[in-house]
Amino acid sequence: MTGDTGRIGGEHADLLDDLLAGKHRALARVITKIENRDPGYRDLVSALHDHTGSSEVVGITGSPGAGKSTLVDKVANYYRERGETVGVIAVDPSSPFTGGAVLGDRIRMASNVGDMDVFFRSMSARGTLGGLSTATTDAVKALDAFGKDKILIETVGAGQNEIDVVKTADTVAVLVPPESGDNVQMLKAGILEIGDVFVVNKADLDGADRTVQELREMLHMRDDRAATLSTGHHGASRSQGGSEDSEDGDDERERWDPRIVETVAKDGDGVPEFVETLADHRAYLERSGRLEAKARTRYAEEIRNLLRDDVGELLEDEIERRGGMAELVAGVMARETDPYSVADEVIDPLEGCLDDS
Amino acid sequence: MTGDTGRIGGEHADLLDDLLAGKHRALARVITKIENRDPGYRDLVSALHDHTGSSEVVGITGSPGAGKSTLVDKVANYYRERGETVGVIAVDPSSPFTGGAVLGDRIRMASNVGDMDVFFRSMSARGTLGGLSTATTDAVKALDAFGKDKILIETVGAGQNEIDVVKTADTVAVLVPPESGDNVQMLKAGILEIGDVFVVNKADLDGADRTVQELREMLHMRDDRAATLSTGHHGASRSQGGSEDSEDGDDERERWDPRIVETVAKDGDGVPEFVETLADHRAYLERSGRLEAKARTRYAEEIRNLLRDDVGELLEDEIERRGGMAELVAGVMARETDPYSVADEVIDPLEGCLDDS
Repeated sequence: MTGDTGRIGGEHADLLDDLLAGKHRALARVITKIENRDPGYRDLVSALHDHTGSSEVVGITGSPGAGKSTLVDKVANYYRERGETVGVIAVDPSSPFTGGAVLGDRIRMASNVGDMDVFFRSMSARGTLGGLSTATTDAVKALDAFGKDKILIETVGAGQNEIDVVKTADTVAVLVPPESGDNVQMLKAGILEIGDVFVVNKADLDGADRTVQELREMLHMRDDRAATLSTGHHGASRSQGGSEDSEDGDDERERWDPRIVETVAKDGDGVPEFVETLADHRAYLERSGRLEAKARTRYAEEIRNLLRDDVGELLEDEIERRGGMAELVAGVMARETDPYSVADEVIDPLEGCLDDS
Repeated sequence: MTGDTGRIGGEHADLLDDLLAGKHRALARVITKIENRDPGYRDLVSALHDHTGSSEVVGITGSPGAGKSTLVDKVANYYRERGETVGVIAVDPSSPFTGGAVLGDRIRMASNVGDMDVFFRSMSARGTLGGLSTATTDAVKALDAFGKDKILIETVGAGQNEIDVVKTADTVAVLVPPESGDNVQMLKAGILEIGDVFVVNKADLDGADRTVQELREMLHMRDDRAATLSTGHHGASRSQGGSEDSEDGDDERERWDPRIVETVAKDGDGVPEFVETLADHRAYLERSGRLEAKARTRYAEEIRNLLRDDVGELLEDEIERRGGMAELVAGVMARETDPYSVADEVIDPLEGCLDDS
């Protein structure tokens, strides 16, 4: 019940206390502040961190029309019926708008349940897409600190940005509609690589069996490719400054073979099996130590993303102070200077500064 | 004949003078220094800049087996026969090795011509891939300052990294083999978006007509999509800190409709038409002002890439000074600190420093 109010001021301290006390209105306001990058949101997220770590976070992605929102609704209700609390974040990287427009109907639906234990929230692209992934991570923290048992991150599409967003989850489920020709789409976005559970939804339609079969073959190819990558490219992936706990190289540990589940979300068919498979994956993560490894990787990436964004802003400010990029480029065009000299001029003060500190 | 030796020391000043005097051995050594990031390479590239701006740079990409190297050889020889000098850089982002292994045969072939006016050089991934794109840009500068009339950048594959590399050219040609099922592959990599000229090579094979037809349709879709993007997403693409002179929004100016050329590179068929199409695109770039706009965009990106790399190194050093990322993450895992606080601690000294300067 007591907020970690060390760093934050009055209004935010109250807000944090209300959130931790289980007030949904405070939760909604915190997520709005996160989304808008309101002044002080950083300290708020900092303070949330101490209260996180107990939610189970599942990311659900797949091409539009695969039936994600229907499945998410069914899963959320299923959890609710078991007495668990649920938060849903629906992310739309392609939309320039914010707010709940997309999910208006679903918010009403949730209200019909009579309580707010299924908390729906949509987030859309504001500013950079990298920022959306950070904002999603931060919103998950808010739900986690609030005490939601389950958090579902649902994406609207299935592109690279969606993948970045959904990777912030512990378990990733990928929805595939039968006979959609969408296998291509999946390969395109690299979505095959990130799925722990694949759901062939609308399994009552013709072609579902064939889709399951094709998926099985593609996953088989994926595993072969992964094996190649982990031997051939380990060094390279390290040097790109990516993860601390690489998912390669843990060949000694228990492995998770991606599962395929068939559902007919609109009728609720297969939902219990899907939920059980998610639980299996969760148990695997805990048992194998992968849950902790994933958390480490995620925090390292989070820190690097924050640093990159922050430093990017610093550099933009510095570029502005020097007359703006157009001005710098004009000098390069006129052969008065060159890109390396420009970079040196901007960076040198920083370098000297770190040496001194 | 006089090098811009203001910033650089004795050995490098001589090297630069030799390069500017047309010595191929010096050109090769400079590119090796660029590739290896030898001490002093930055000043060397800085000094090159003043002598650049007269080469015509063409990037050639496409999936493996499309016949890129054969076409590049034919095009290079065609230019040679017209009395123009040519430099070729073959880039292989997927190879961890450096040196000329891949192109051994072709280097011998070039020697058979009897002179070195077709200068071949392969470059592979060393360090980060972002670095390869920078290294290619720098190598192009060396060839440009040397005085090559034409510079061809050839990629081995056709993935995202190849796209980044080939985008450093003024004109991008994309090779497509007929009936390869590679249309999918192209869409995947976003390669369709970057081509100014599409070459259906091996046009004597069955299915070439169909491939031309499919390509035409895909390019049509591309133009529709581009129109949507330039209205809907202009702001978003700006805010990602990308180009200064966005390719969107110049609707007033003359447009280039991508062309499709058919070739049988091994027999030289269609090579004159291809070369002529490249010249048409070049003329369009000059006439429309796009050549200068592209240069501006490229310099801005070059500066931003250099800044990002430099600052990335600074941050990595700073992270090391604070015990390394694993240590920082351990604090976050133990809830002693959190990602935002860690980022603040690392960034704050930099911020203060820039304010002071």
